[in-house]
Amino acid sequence: MTETTTANVWVSKGVVEQQRIAIPEIPATGLLIEVTANGICGTDAHLIGSQPSAPLVLGHEIVGRIVAFGSTHSRRDAADAPLVEGDAIALFPWLPCLVCWGCRRFGPAATTCSNPFVYGIPPEALGLPPLAERAASADLSGGFGRHLIVKPGTYFWRVPEGMPHEIAALLDPLAVAVRSVDVMKTAPGTWDEVIRPDSTAVVLGAGAIGLLAAMVLQSAGVTDVIVSGSRASRLGLAREICGDSVLDIHALDAAERRQYVLDRTGGRGADIVIDATNQPASLGEALGLVRRLGTVVEVGNIVSEGKTLQIDPAEDICQKNVRLLGVAANPPQSYSEAMALLARHEQLPFERLISSRHSFADLPNALEDLAGDTVKVMLVADRN
Amino acid sequence: MTETTTANVWVSKGVVEQQRIAIPEIPATGLLIEVTANGICGTDAHLIGSQPSAPLVLGHEIVGRIVAFGSTHSRRDAADAPLVEGDAIALFPWLPCLVCWGCRRFGPAATTCSNPFVYGIPPEALGLPPLAERAASADLSGGFGRHLIVKPGTYFWRVPEGMPHEIAALLDPLAVAVRSVDVMKTAPGTWDEVIRPDSTAVVLGAGAIGLLAAMVLQSAGVTDVIVSGSRASRLGLAREICGDSVLDIHALDAAERRQYVLDRTGGRGADIVIDATNQPASLGEALGLVRRLGTVVEVGNIVSEGKTLQIDPAEDICQKNVRLLGVAANPPQSYSEAMALLARHEQLPFERLISSRHSFADLPNALEDLAGDTVKVMLVADRN
Amino acid sequence: MTETTTANVWVSKGVVEQQRIAIPEIPATGLLIEVTANGICGTDAHLIGSQPSAPLVLGHEIVGRIVAFGSTHSRRDAADAPLVEGDAIALFPWLPCLVCWGCRRFGPAATTCSNPFVYGIPPEALGLPPLAERAASADLSGGFGRHLIVKPGTYFWRVPEGMPHEIAALLDPLAVAVRSVDVMKTAPGTWDEVIRPDSTAVVLGAGAIGLLAAMVLQSAGVTDVIVSGSRASRLGLAREICGDSVLDIHALDAAERRQYVLDRTGGRGADIVIDATNQPASLGEALGLVRRLGTVVEVGNIVSEGKTLQIDPAEDICQKNVRLLGVAANPPQSYSEAMALLARHEQLPFERLISSRHSFADLPNALEDLAGDTVKVMLVADRN
Amino acid sequence: MTETTTANVWVSKGVVEQQRIAIPEIPATGLLIEVTANGICGTDAHLIGSQPSAPLVLGHEIVGRIVAFGSTHSRRDAADAPLVEGDAIALFPWLPCLVCWGCRRFGPAATTCSNPFVYGIPPEALGLPPLAERAASADLSGGFGRHLIVKPGTYFWRVPEGMPHEIAALLDPLAVAVRSVDVMKTAPGTWDEVIRPDSTAVVLGAGAIGLLAAMVLQSAGVTDVIVSGSRASRLGLAREICGDSVLDIHALDAAERRQYVLDRTGGRGADIVIDATNQPASLGEALGLVRRLGTVVEVGNIVSEGKTLQIDPAEDICQKNVRLLGVAANPPQSYSEAMALLARHEQLPFERLISSRHSFADLPNALEDLAGDTVKVMLVADRN
Repeated sequence: MTETTTANVWVSKGVVEQQRIAIPEIPATGLLIEVTANGICGTDAHLIGSQPSAPLVLGHEIVGRIVAFGSTHSRRDAADAPLVEGDAIALFPWLPCLVCWGCRRFGPAATTCSNPFVYGIPPEALGLPPLAERAASADLSGGFGRHLIVKPGTYFWRVPEGMPHEIAALLDPLAVAVRSVDVMKTAPGTWDEVIRPDSTAVVLGAGAIGLLAAMVLQSAGVTDVIVSGSRASRLGLAREICGDSVLDIHALDAAERRQYVLDRTGGRGADIVIDATNQPASLGEALGLVRRLGTVVEVGNIVSEGKTLQIDPAEDICQKNVRLLGVAANPPQSYSEAMALLARHEQLPFERLISSRHSFADLPNALEDLAGDTVKVMLVADRN
Repeated sequence: MTETTTANVWVSKGVVEQQRIAIPEIPATGLLIEVTANGICGTDAHLIGSQPSAPLVLGHEIVGRIVAFGSTHSRRDAADAPLVEGDAIALFPWLPCLVCWGCRRFGPAATTCSNPFVYGIPPEALGLPPLAERAASADLSGGFGRHLIVKPGTYFWRVPEGMPHEIAALLDPLAVAVRSVDVMKTAPGTWDEVIRPDSTAVVLGAGAIGLLAAMVLQSAGVTDVIVSGSRASRLGLAREICGDSVLDIHALDAAERRQYVLDRTGGRGADIVIDATNQPASLGEALGLVRRLGTVVEVGNIVSEGKTLQIDPAEDICQKNVRLLGVAANPPQSYSEAMALLARHEQLPFERLISSRHSFADLPNALEDLAGDTVKVMLVADRN
Repeated sequence: MTETTTANVWVSKGVVEQQRIAIPEIPATGLLIEVTANGICGTDAHLIGSQPSAPLVLGHEIVGRIVAFGSTHSRRDAADAPLVEGDAIALFPWLPCLVCWGCRRFGPAATTCSNPFVYGIPPEALGLPPLAERAASADLSGGFGRHLIVKPGTYFWRVPEGMPHEIAALLDPLAVAVRSVDVMKTAPGTWDEVIRPDSTAVVLGAGAIGLLAAMVLQSAGVTDVIVSGSRASRLGLAREICGDSVLDIHALDAAERRQYVLDRTGGRGADIVIDATNQPASLGEALGLVRRLGTVVEVGNIVSEGKTLQIDPAEDICQKNVRLLGVAANPPQSYSEAMALLARHEQLPFERLISSRHSFADLPNALEDLAGDTVKVMLVADRN
Repeated sequence: MTETTTANVWVSKGVVEQQRIAIPEIPATGLLIEVTANGICGTDAHLIGSQPSAPLVLGHEIVGRIVAFGSTHSRRDAADAPLVEGDAIALFPWLPCLVCWGCRRFGPAATTCSNPFVYGIPPEALGLPPLAERAASADLSGGFGRHLIVKPGTYFWRVPEGMPHEIAALLDPLAVAVRSVDVMKTAPGTWDEVIRPDSTAVVLGAGAIGLLAAMVLQSAGVTDVIVSGSRASRLGLAREICGDSVLDIHALDAAERRQYVLDRTGGRGADIVIDATNQPASLGEALGLVRRLGTVVEVGNIVSEGKTLQIDPAEDICQKNVRLLGVAANPPQSYSEAMALLARHEQLPFERLISSRHSFADLPNALEDLAGDTVKVMLVADRN
């Protein structure tokens, strides 16, 4: 086994440097993996622009090959599939405490635990207390490094034969999209029932979450999906997914977009609107596009920048009898569903969402790509 | 059978006058009832202050005795209970068209039909098209008259022996409260599940809907209910229902109320907040009081007065993973449930919510009462 | 307008004869259609083998072109789509009374009304009271006739441009399959949640309902579907839908089939089993194939032939914590969903399920086909 | 701290003897409690009549006072309530592995884990693998001992001030009753919706689970509850809970009981039937009593004795469109709800269900009581 490895360490505001880091002993029920693909998230770039509280390896959309098992590891994944060395796995990047009220009430999940560990993200960036045991130097807990220690209790899934690792690395954003659709599901007969073949959905925003949400809606049977966005290549991808039902917000103003949706829905408005932008004003647009008794999901505005929106509780909420659902929390079950969707990668155009691939050493160029008209930028190992 | 009857007719802005009106032929599958109790709603007073498009008998919280059946009436109520002349019934005041998209999608319900008839309310006051066939003079379709023609297709329920008619006349507001709680119900295990014995609920507003919602929550197993309000007698009634968990908004400011709720819930916030006020700012308070992954119901702000509220989609909705439900639509099923609750009138303090009773001739004094510190003001027949 | 038309009239046990029938006046909110396609159901053949209480035109899987509207018809379909003469429509074949307890509790639906009209089926064949007003001669209320009067209040949907009418005539069986899947749907997080991309389903029976249920499962995101059946051409169609996951019950005995399912599911059993056979013993097989906490749907055994099944309430139901759902009732909403699925006929292999097409005059040969290794036999007009 | 304690140890078939057992070191995140109340379950008596694989302290309905905390215990309960020495707690008696497929899919729960620990029950009695690390002598893991070690990860709830410990010891059977009602809950508007104030429920069986289920139904708003049973004192308790709606199966035969339910429900049958007997034939009665589209819960027949029941899948399941739910699995959330119900012990007659109390030394007499016409027999400490 290699005794040291290389990682991109975020050391200070705007500075990421390659460091050699010693590979520690593997915990008895943990794993050592070689990272083979890691998607870069907008949050990563956002964080690099700020000052870390301690040196850290970022990266939380992680896929890697098993180098070695801890001494008593069960050698099974979260679906009970058997594992051997060399198998690739994709991670649920949250490791909740299992002890706090949130864990006891909701089970393990993203953002419900008061004291979670998260791979590749400093907890304080999420408004959580900083890790007590943070070392002065970086450890192998982020996907921007060439190796990573999978801690005991982490949920992960075996990457099936034939699935490219960069597609498996879409697991985390796809699970967010899955959750955004799952939260709308109901038993049949409720007035809230909108995940149906005869529904019309609007997705605001054509970034990774928006495009994946459009695909998840379709795979759940909602085939009439309209996507709005602004950047050219993203709109092109949206058209590959939704056909002509793509609205360029530079070509159509808000009133024209609303008219488009009304015309499409017999004047009623959309059954479903998912706001996957990070623009507060988009929630106002969503409430205007949805029909009476319809559902709005707010998943894009996850980071507050202090901007607000004016709503009229009577017209926008009560009279409209709307169901408005915020989505931040996410259980491993969404990841399990997302793995099953990724397994259909030969039918579904996941691969088209990967705008560029870079080696781990080439992180600076990857970050540059991220700022342009791209959807998902990947770090990939030379062979995976 | 009496050939004419008396009714309070709203003839012009601020003017209601007693008129004699001819009793028409009863439709074959309709009924003639003598109104024995009719609750006065804030909307009634609001309407009287404006100009009617045509003379109208107001009143939509209607209970009456069956004087005569139409020739082919089934002589059964909505629960299939057999009926005889002299039985009292309580009405679902909406009569949807059954033909429009809303009726076909949601079934008969309040506010989902594009072209409904409503007893005692001019459709145009609800933003609906005025009735095409409105006569120049008032007809017997409101509860402020001594008799009323129950149109074919109307849902109604037999008032059980021993239930005072003014309690039966709480059916309509109680059904709104029932719906406000029902919309929160889920199958077990969902994260949204809040109608549970171990939940804490806050009801903002101690008017009829707020107090009834507190009672409905308790009857559904949520016993820890906090009510906030301002008027003294309403707060007194709230204490009869909820014990000490009553917040006087004149005694505690918003920060103190929030602290009270946090202290009560281990710092998490309430599982449930029902906004039963008609103050737009209350929705902001509701979003601040609810815990992460909790549920807010907006039922009070049903009339827009153009006032708005500023929200931050990130902090208030997305990060908080909140479920915000507007409630305006209501099916007859809520009325069926409400009738079953009213049948427990010897255990539940419905009677305490009736602040004053007036004869039909005494409408002016009834309206005066309504403006004071009252909950529900009733018109009642001398004997019922 | 034609003054008479032709229909296949079931006149006595085993005898269907062509008759000329006068076209009556169209009800004000009804329609006259020319039937262009009508699927033959096993029930039709079953009925013909018995004695009718009065001459009757059978056929309840009905598609036709609008010849004329009643004088005050809204000229809209159940989805509010505008209609003109010449448009084709597909019918919901049930017309509930809207007055009985079942109608008031569940809304209009198949089998929930105590006194429904059904196109092309004598009510007494369904255990319902015979129609009071049945005439001595047949009228135009079944799809085996060349014309049909659509009664006021019937739900129907416009057949979109480009959809072959025989595909539209799959609406009724497809709606049964839709309902069989819909009843399993839940909000996310419940233990009953099985309509998920990572579930494995078994469909017992490869007839029309079984094959359509497999397609509906896939369109709802459950892609791992196993079908078992016996007839060669049906198994061939099953393979077109499900790939290799098709079990020939003549090649594999019950124990082998169970082992196949266990091997496929990590030894746990299937998440979902739909029994779409009409063999009572299949329910026993279903309870043996499903995993603990899984769901079984019984939709095939709709006609009792007095055969029973032995179950152990402890092992089969309680310990297994199973959810067993009988499916007979069906609302128009399932038909609305089914129409949206049929609209994807260029992607989904609906057309493959139509085993043979016959003219209306050729009913005898159609019935002969039905008895063989076919899935769906159609009556079709020469041009549609 | 006491260094040894006393326990009733099940040593061989029919033999339980008092032994002194050393109190071991408390695990760092565990607890030592003095048992103050422990309900005796029919399973306990059943087990004593068989041969243990190793000496064992039975008892799984456990309440005790905290004697000492492990060194790093959080000093909070499952609801995050703070704890001090001397506080009483009630336990969730299952400790799942958290690693197997069942745990990952359903979270911690009774009967879903492949490899659980259970307080006071030998796993092999539940069809699970025997504990690998079972010592040759009994340890402090059952409620029939005077002290018990609460293992790390166990869910427990603080017993509020003023709640008698024997009432807190109803937690486990009450949680089973809670679950039996919870599984029926749905969002509003589904056809399955039966937990409503206007529903009629039948509970078959007047033992602890049956009577508690009747109380849980009432607390969830279903006030019209019919209970059937046979033993005199149990029927007396049933009348205290349900008034006159109690059926003595020795006084009324099955046809008369069915007629009673039909008369009560307008000829339709009950909306809900809970089978809380351990008689296989009762499931047949349940399917006969429930209305079309109603719900049957099978919770009583948890132990198979090889007896079966004949059902007709067409008449009993499919045509009836019934929902039949087996209940064996149970999450800690049901216990959390049950604790909230127990907190209402001054309003609800929980205390009446405790038929007799015995000291821990008096186990033989307690077991004798259990065989008679009793509901719940308790072991209680002299002071608690």
